[in-house]
Amino acid sequence: MIDVTLLGCGGMMPMKDRWLTSCLLTCDGRSVLIDCGEGTQIAMKCASRRVKPVELICFTHFHADHISGLPGFLLSMGNEGRTEPVTIAGPRGLERTVRSLCVIAPALPFEIRFAELKDEQTLHCGELEIDFFKARHSIECIGYSVSLKRQGKFDPEKAVQNNVPKRIWSTLQKNGEVDYEGVHYTFDMVGGKPRKGIKVSYCTDSRPTERIAEGVKESDLFICEGLYSEADKTERAIKTGHMMFCEAASLAAKAGVRELWLTHFSPALTEPQEGLPAVREIFPNAHCGFDGKTVTLNFED
Amino acid sequence: MIDVTLLGCGGMMPMKDRWLTSCLLTCDGRSVLIDCGEGTQIAMKCASRRVKPVELICFTHFHADHISGLPGFLLSMGNEGRTEPVTIAGPRGLERTVRSLCVIAPALPFEIRFAELKDEQTLHCGELEIDFFKARHSIECIGYSVSLKRQGKFDPEKAVQNNVPKRIWSTLQKNGEVDYEGVHYTFDMVGGKPRKGIKVSYCTDSRPTERIAEGVKESDLFICEGLYSEADKTERAIKTGHMMFCEAASLAAKAGVRELWLTHFSPALTEPQEGLPAVREIFPNAHCGFDGKTVTLNFED
Repeated sequence: MIDVTLLGCGGMMPMKDRWLTSCLLTCDGRSVLIDCGEGTQIAMKCASRRVKPVELICFTHFHADHISGLPGFLLSMGNEGRTEPVTIAGPRGLERTVRSLCVIAPALPFEIRFAELKDEQTLHCGELEIDFFKARHSIECIGYSVSLKRQGKFDPEKAVQNNVPKRIWSTLQKNGEVDYEGVHYTFDMVGGKPRKGIKVSYCTDSRPTERIAEGVKESDLFICEGLYSEADKTERAIKTGHMMFCEAASLAAKAGVRELWLTHFSPALTEPQEGLPAVREIFPNAHCGFDGKTVTLNFED
Repeated sequence: MIDVTLLGCGGMMPMKDRWLTSCLLTCDGRSVLIDCGEGTQIAMKCASRRVKPVELICFTHFHADHISGLPGFLLSMGNEGRTEPVTIAGPRGLERTVRSLCVIAPALPFEIRFAELKDEQTLHCGELEIDFFKARHSIECIGYSVSLKRQGKFDPEKAVQNNVPKRIWSTLQKNGEVDYEGVHYTFDMVGGKPRKGIKVSYCTDSRPTERIAEGVKESDLFICEGLYSEADKTERAIKTGHMMFCEAASLAAKAGVRELWLTHFSPALTEPQEGLPAVREIFPNAHCGFDGKTVTLNFED
């Protein structure tokens, strides 16, 4: 299962009643944070989450509302006693940007590893697989999809057919491969086709594109920017590389996702839920994000 | 008069119910901000203050809890439409640190001027005069005193004695000097001795020192670090270059200030007011700071 918490739902600047957009995904006690604007470490406290277990911090891009909270976040991880390495991922320019910001966090008690994402590449955090896709913003920007794969059902008949000793069945099911009495056994010798896993996608800030629809395809949950709700802001959204509510809904429909959460609301958008009826005409299972909105996604039975 | 708002009273890391310590001083619509940790721009909103009129930002030192909010603060000033220059002051290393942090705020619509404070130097923000003094912390650190001077009383007899024409009396009183019919007139030709003005001092993070007592001497308000209240934390305070509640009180007494506000509380110090009775035995007019604590200081009648 994956626990998903939208820590904040604000865009552009933090407000007194709305944290900046960032998202925490946790699986089996290991966490991935996507984006870390000013106040994200406080938003974590508000959501009763600890910063220490975050293993991977992914940035969509380097505008301040997505990264300005990083030095404080890293220092708080140190204060909570983290000594294990932390991987930080993001578009080109990542290491230079992070090192520059960390002028005020010069002595962290853990190593930082950089994953500057250019070509196709999959990151891992425990069992989670994190892929990225290009977005279209005023500066280089990427979106992420976080997947938890699920192996096929164990098939005792197939195991017998393939002469897999019964005493290693459970270990093989758990670990995927086992060496036993000089033979290498793999899960495909005992299991059926992989079953549907869980996929969560996150995209902000961007115009809608085919590449995003492809990247977030068939997600169980798609968290997407909706900076503006009112149609008269469309021109501004186009000009500044942001997404409208209805564009996010069209993207969700095109990509065949199950559920859409809108986020990264403009500070001027005080009542985002007023835009929902129009959004639901395009994509019915759409919801407005809010600070601390949480869901636990499980494998299907 | 000076309006003083303690925007936050926390030390080390921002908490969900306590902003990091910073202070806003406003005189005649012009503002000085001292320190700007993560969330200070939100603390300003909570205190119903706008970021745009801040002309001078003073840093005590460059630990993250005192400066990490700067890039977002500057960007929000730009969003509010500021185009006039902003002066940023602080200890040595200021420009390098600020430029490094501003990697995520590369295109501000106003000029930044740096005042790297080494020797004796007085900064100005409208009628406010800002002096600094050395503190003693784990890294280079300074405290500030902000003064509003008050000229002497207008003395008509002296004016007549000095042949100051009556028609320039009010202008001379207002402006301090006037050129009229080829003669240069100055306020000392019509005024008595300067009267007591207003002085507000701010010091965190530091051990107590003679130099601080001298710098904050006879302040109307002294805002001072009190990281820990409990005596068993004294060794830790000494080791890390911080101040205890009772040390701040002794400093206030020695410096002959009128009023003391404690601030920069340890995150573990959830009920700072419990330490007040012991503090008041040393310095009776001591108070615990809290987020948004505000006072308007006027000239004496």
